[in-house]
Amino acid sequence: MTDIDKANSEAVGRMMESRPVLVGMGIARDVIPGMGEDVLLHAGPPITWDRMSGPLRGAIIGALIFEGRAKDAAEAEALVTGGKVNFEPCHHHSAVGPMAGVISPSMAVYIIENKTHGNRAYSNLNEGYGKVLRYGAYSEDVQERLRWMQDVLAPTLSAALDASDGGIDIKTLLAEALHMGDEGHNRNKAGSILFLKALAPLVAKNAKDAQTASDVLKAIGDNALAVLNPVMAACKAMADAGFGIEGSTLVSAMARNGTDFGIRISGLGERWFTAPAQIPDGLYFPGFTSDDANADIGDSTITETAGIGAFAMAAAPAIVTFISGTPKDALNATLEMYEITAGEHSAFTIPSLDFRGSPVGIDIRKVVETGITPRVNTGIAHKEAGVGQVGAGLVRPPMAIFEEALVAFADQYGF
Amino acid sequence: MTDIDKANSEAVGRMMESRPVLVGMGIARDVIPGMGEDVLLHAGPPITWDRMSGPLRGAIIGALIFEGRAKDAAEAEALVTGGKVNFEPCHHHSAVGPMAGVISPSMAVYIIENKTHGNRAYSNLNEGYGKVLRYGAYSEDVQERLRWMQDVLAPTLSAALDASDGGIDIKTLLAEALHMGDEGHNRNKAGSILFLKALAPLVAKNAKDAQTASDVLKAIGDNALAVLNPVMAACKAMADAGFGIEGSTLVSAMARNGTDFGIRISGLGERWFTAPAQIPDGLYFPGFTSDDANADIGDSTITETAGIGAFAMAAAPAIVTFISGTPKDALNATLEMYEITAGEHSAFTIPSLDFRGSPVGIDIRKVVETGITPRVNTGIAHKEAGVGQVGAGLVRPPMAIFEEALVAFADQYGF
Repeated sequence: MTDIDKANSEAVGRMMESRPVLVGMGIARDVIPGMGEDVLLHAGPPITWDRMSGPLRGAIIGALIFEGRAKDAAEAEALVTGGKVNFEPCHHHSAVGPMAGVISPSMAVYIIENKTHGNRAYSNLNEGYGKVLRYGAYSEDVQERLRWMQDVLAPTLSAALDASDGGIDIKTLLAEALHMGDEGHNRNKAGSILFLKALAPLVAKNAKDAQTASDVLKAIGDNALAVLNPVMAACKAMADAGFGIEGSTLVSAMARNGTDFGIRISGLGERWFTAPAQIPDGLYFPGFTSDDANADIGDSTITETAGIGAFAMAAAPAIVTFISGTPKDALNATLEMYEITAGEHSAFTIPSLDFRGSPVGIDIRKVVETGITPRVNTGIAHKEAGVGQVGAGLVRPPMAIFEEALVAFADQYGF
Repeated sequence: MTDIDKANSEAVGRMMESRPVLVGMGIARDVIPGMGEDVLLHAGPPITWDRMSGPLRGAIIGALIFEGRAKDAAEAEALVTGGKVNFEPCHHHSAVGPMAGVISPSMAVYIIENKTHGNRAYSNLNEGYGKVLRYGAYSEDVQERLRWMQDVLAPTLSAALDASDGGIDIKTLLAEALHMGDEGHNRNKAGSILFLKALAPLVAKNAKDAQTASDVLKAIGDNALAVLNPVMAACKAMADAGFGIEGSTLVSAMARNGTDFGIRISGLGERWFTAPAQIPDGLYFPGFTSDDANADIGDSTITETAGIGAFAMAAAPAIVTFISGTPKDALNATLEMYEITAGEHSAFTIPSLDFRGSPVGIDIRKVVETGITPRVNTGIAHKEAGVGQVGAGLVRPPMAIFEEALVAFADQYGF
């Protein structure tokens, strides 16, 4: 075993032995480290306003309206161009957000604690389908939904979690969901109702009244992505546990801001390796085509980084009705990912592959050597601010960022 | 197409187009047709006390105690031997029950209505795991659980269903569960939490208080078989819609009473064809072996009759951890059942088989011709009254009953 192999084994081992638990809710400004009042967190690697795509700009406008800092798009843009807003990646603050991934200081967030290594991670609440902030929509109905989530959903979840016996173990939930046809990224149908199952008795007992309990349980039950955000934060907590291992060539973060696709490497510190994000291949909603699509966006690739999502697609044959392809393609997707990973997951197993562990720990050496880039399942946003989701599909990061990272690794470690 | 093929096509068509909906709860004596005060319904074909196995006797003792007709086993047996109890199959009253399948007049039952054909079917409530009446246990803790189900669970479900928008569509629920790793008989993990998802907002709002709502949601969420009984009644409603078609060789009921395995044929009226039930092959709980096992028991084979259960096992690769075998065996089980069935289900599809419809409508001609008997997934009861479940596994009905039925068919229709 070479030194790199040893380092990678340590990194992937730390990821796999992680036990992320949803321990409670908080307000971003109170719980997310370094979250200043003028900061907006966003998905992907760092980016400036002038290079941002439509959906990310839309979500930022929406967040500034939600914060009460602007009353409309024009005021929001004036704040931004006047230098009153600091943009920082979620990933710089132990956080992740799906699609635009915008988290503003007032927003309620999930708090995940990695019981094995002690690190924490955060994500915002999932809004469900339709016109939603994460796809860049910011109209009054989007705001109304955000306010309900803030004033009703989050406090109810908070009371439920506070009354729970130590929170909800997301690692166990994910392992179970993979045996129930989920892959944990684009398909979280089973995971979301397992989440509901854990919450229902607690919500029924601790909500402020029966109507609130009923509304909250309906909102969670009707949203097949309800658990996506805590799952993403759980994956972030696992991936972070494998970050910063001297000499490791494993990927610790993959994320897109709608313009660039970026990765960070365990042994290469805080540096991002980026290249232009691609347009996903997939199935479009009626009335939309790939001409409407924004380039790939979101931190949800943290799921693939942690060995689920497209990497566990063999567990989720029914997903092809949503993202295109055949059940056989889903099987092959997982098989291909074993070619570029350092391990097979000890907790996340795939029944149809005789309970083989999902491929985990993307090794940039193997990516470059085989020419196989990681697979990613993803939602597709409209390229203009304010529209929303137009489809779902498959995408891969550009090969260039893995090559660049490998060169940097050789430079740093002197190979 | 021969006349028999036409009749079978009609029978299986009527089964598949059925839409079973859980419309409410009732008390057996009030809602089950012909349910007299001295009647106890049981699983399988007709049987007398002297031929009953341990678990069925145990459940009958338990039901008589539950009814307040006896205070212990000795009193219950005295009632039976004194001719004070009439035993009748659930199947003679549009009802089905898992394992011993005992339904007594006071018991709360699910009411399923087939919205397509108007017929109704009934089942009792599922008790969960451990020492339970359906496995022949009848001790005070079993009674306590039954009283809680009767006094708390059933009225809460009743209020929830009454407040629902027309009940819960079990056909849709099953179709979804088959895409989430269930086969609908031994694995109802997804179905049970889909059931919870439908019920949770209604229970939270309509339970008598928050504690009751919380207890009921916990009981349903913690019981991965919670939905089995309404699913069985839904299958009964579908199978009954295909019963009584002149000239049809399809099986409309398969059921076991712990001593005999019996089937009824669509074109052959009320008559049962029976032979001794077998001991299932499977995985035993620690401390038990096949020496402890009772012969196959229960009406739950109505699931296989309706094209799910072992017939849809390819949808449920993870089930092998519970009933033995490999995921490949699960795939092959479904493929084999296409050899003996008349149709592929238009609503119940299997992702891993490219969304092929599950095999449905067992044709006794094909069973006899191919020598392939239907596969059944099942729980395994201890052979003595009062013990409970000892494992789970696979079983097949004896070939003799299909041969006998085919001879009777030839006699009746003059082939």
